[in-house]
Amino acid sequence: MTDFNLMRELRRQAPGKIILLVMDGLGGLPLEPGGPTELEAAHTPHLDRLAAEGTLGQTIPIRHGLTPGSGPAHLGLFGYDPLTYVVGRGVLESVGVGIVVRKGEVAARGNFCTVDAQGMITDRRAGRISSGEALPLVEKLAKVRIPGVQVEVRHVQEYRFAAVMRGPGLESDIADTDPQRTGVPALEARPTKAGSQKTAELFNAWIAEARKAIADQPKANALTLRGFSTDPGLPSFPETFGVRSACVAAYPMYRGVAELVGMTVLKFEGDKPEDEFAAVARAWDDFDFFFVHIKKTDSRGEDGDFAAKSAVVEGVDAALPDLLKLGPAVLAVAGDHSTPAKLKAHSWHPVPFLLWAPATVRTDDQRRFGETACSHGGLGTFLATDAMPLMLAHAQRLEKFGA
Amino acid sequence: MTDFNLMRELRRQAPGKIILLVMDGLGGLPLEPGGPTELEAAHTPHLDRLAAEGTLGQTIPIRHGLTPGSGPAHLGLFGYDPLTYVVGRGVLESVGVGIVVRKGEVAARGNFCTVDAQGMITDRRAGRISSGEALPLVEKLAKVRIPGVQVEVRHVQEYRFAAVMRGPGLESDIADTDPQRTGVPALEARPTKAGSQKTAELFNAWIAEARKAIADQPKANALTLRGFSTDPGLPSFPETFGVRSACVAAYPMYRGVAELVGMTVLKFEGDKPEDEFAAVARAWDDFDFFFVHIKKTDSRGEDGDFAAKSAVVEGVDAALPDLLKLGPAVLAVAGDHSTPAKLKAHSWHPVPFLLWAPATVRTDDQRRFGETACSHGGLGTFLATDAMPLMLAHAQRLEKFGA
Repeated sequence: MTDFNLMRELRRQAPGKIILLVMDGLGGLPLEPGGPTELEAAHTPHLDRLAAEGTLGQTIPIRHGLTPGSGPAHLGLFGYDPLTYVVGRGVLESVGVGIVVRKGEVAARGNFCTVDAQGMITDRRAGRISSGEALPLVEKLAKVRIPGVQVEVRHVQEYRFAAVMRGPGLESDIADTDPQRTGVPALEARPTKAGSQKTAELFNAWIAEARKAIADQPKANALTLRGFSTDPGLPSFPETFGVRSACVAAYPMYRGVAELVGMTVLKFEGDKPEDEFAAVARAWDDFDFFFVHIKKTDSRGEDGDFAAKSAVVEGVDAALPDLLKLGPAVLAVAGDHSTPAKLKAHSWHPVPFLLWAPATVRTDDQRRFGETACSHGGLGTFLATDAMPLMLAHAQRLEKFGA
Repeated sequence: MTDFNLMRELRRQAPGKIILLVMDGLGGLPLEPGGPTELEAAHTPHLDRLAAEGTLGQTIPIRHGLTPGSGPAHLGLFGYDPLTYVVGRGVLESVGVGIVVRKGEVAARGNFCTVDAQGMITDRRAGRISSGEALPLVEKLAKVRIPGVQVEVRHVQEYRFAAVMRGPGLESDIADTDPQRTGVPALEARPTKAGSQKTAELFNAWIAEARKAIADQPKANALTLRGFSTDPGLPSFPETFGVRSACVAAYPMYRGVAELVGMTVLKFEGDKPEDEFAAVARAWDDFDFFFVHIKKTDSRGEDGDFAAKSAVVEGVDAALPDLLKLGPAVLAVAGDHSTPAKLKAHSWHPVPFLLWAPATVRTDDQRRFGETACSHGGLGTFLATDAMPLMLAHAQRLEKFGA
């Protein structure tokens, strides 16, 4: 696990720049025993060349056997052990839809539900109403006003939304209002520490007004809130590792996590690999470290579309020369976790990792970028939190430890 | 290392069942450089097929370089870090000969010794008397009675026995009575915490009576006690991992360790692999997790009989179809440690690990089950405590961590 104080002690400036290219959900599974994975089935001449010139390994996102969500998986790649640096569900959901949550602001994840005439919950997820049905309800909630604070509300997916309260003196130690069963009323927001009493009352006031606003709605006439949390105050990534750091990501969730650790989020148009790589090129002189995020490997994995996931990888491969011509000292190609098309979901399997660093890498005997090659790579199998020290070292950005 | 609270949070029910087949002391050594190990020399068509369809790795029982006893090695495979969850020697010895030690009962390991007319120890192990010579002495000790408590005594091996005291208000914080040298008397049982005063006095009373009972014996006329301990109160395995858990083992030691972690110990006749596998089949519907223990790989390794150890593996392989036809979601074939015939003893070497899980496994490029193949397997080299999360994950019995 990355020792942050040690990193601060050992970091040093060097001219070489680092690119961390994350293909979300990169790891896959063969459809039949001994067959290729999505990555292995893809035609990837550039990645294969980098594999031959660099070294391979496989990362364990959190611990063996644990399937990570996107937030924890990215924190791990950034060097933050997800079991130590826990980000609340409310913050992650908010960040995921592009709401910035700052210290002292309180985020919650919301569920639309249905209640009967007596106020008893009849469906905790309002029949999993569609996003189309939920959006007008979110608009009603967004207009709710209560004295002393502002509450920003955005839709997440289906029956889920995110709410962030802003104002003076707020605390986030509040228990979920979802009773986890039907036939009972939603719970009041109750403080779990004394300091959160006022915030709980404000949330109860907001909930009361919000329920009035949707009381006559046919599909969902009530709501619950869970995962109350605030900015976890993560150590600063640029300060800890001594790198001016930029995030290039098309999806809000990943921009949000990058912002939580203090990276500068770059604006750009488009969502193709070449659009993202062009954004890196434009900002090349201003940063030392670039986190570049490709979403669609994960999306096609979640769809269960093996061939489409391979095609996304091929698209990244085709655009790679745009990154290489910038002359990075280190290019790491990684995944935050596996999303095998066969499982249509995130999984716990080890994740391929490629480290290319022409001046400093110890090349191994692997010649292609794929799961099996990575399991035989020179870096071995290691925790994702070790990726940052490895990248910094290969960019000659870490001092020797001890005399 | 397995985080037990995290496991409790993430565990979930799923239909797939898990079999952990442990061949004790599975890991071996070649008799000459480059030669096969006992496992590699064995003809194992079924295990090789599972290796081809599954994935391999190698486990480190405790930490690199540490040779484990059977108790800690099994705790590791069950997910309990043996350096955190320390089970006292007295409890392990007792459990090893089939004495159940419950909370509040105090177990000790006993050594027969010899003393001269002045009561000074002349041989701390009584010339390592044979089991045949020790058994009549153990029978005498078993008849010793003192007021207020019962003491169960069983023979372990040669000069060693186990003693468990039962009664109200007992505490186990007592120092060893073995002075670790000759020419001095055996020590009194002394409490290391105030609460153990009464228990120490009871043990001293029992020792006095026990010494009277064997004072006239020619081979061993005294005794010492060590490793005073009680049931360590390990977290429950079935509760922690959310699996109804059964143990199928022919030897008392392994049934004992399984019982310490809360598994249900199944009764069955015979001690062959097919007898054990039939016991699994009979209980198949009632449990989610089966720990199946094969002892004789270790026994033949301790004998130094390379060919006989290979033959034990071949016997397991031949019976494997009985397990496979039950349709487990996950079959892990593991060892608790290595017992190379070349060393005639437990060793610290990594242990072969095979994970077969048709619905979820990432196959690697290894086609046979053996030490070298396992060192190239897709799972890499990992701590034995990571085996449980891996098995649960492959049975889809763990929720995602974080959003």
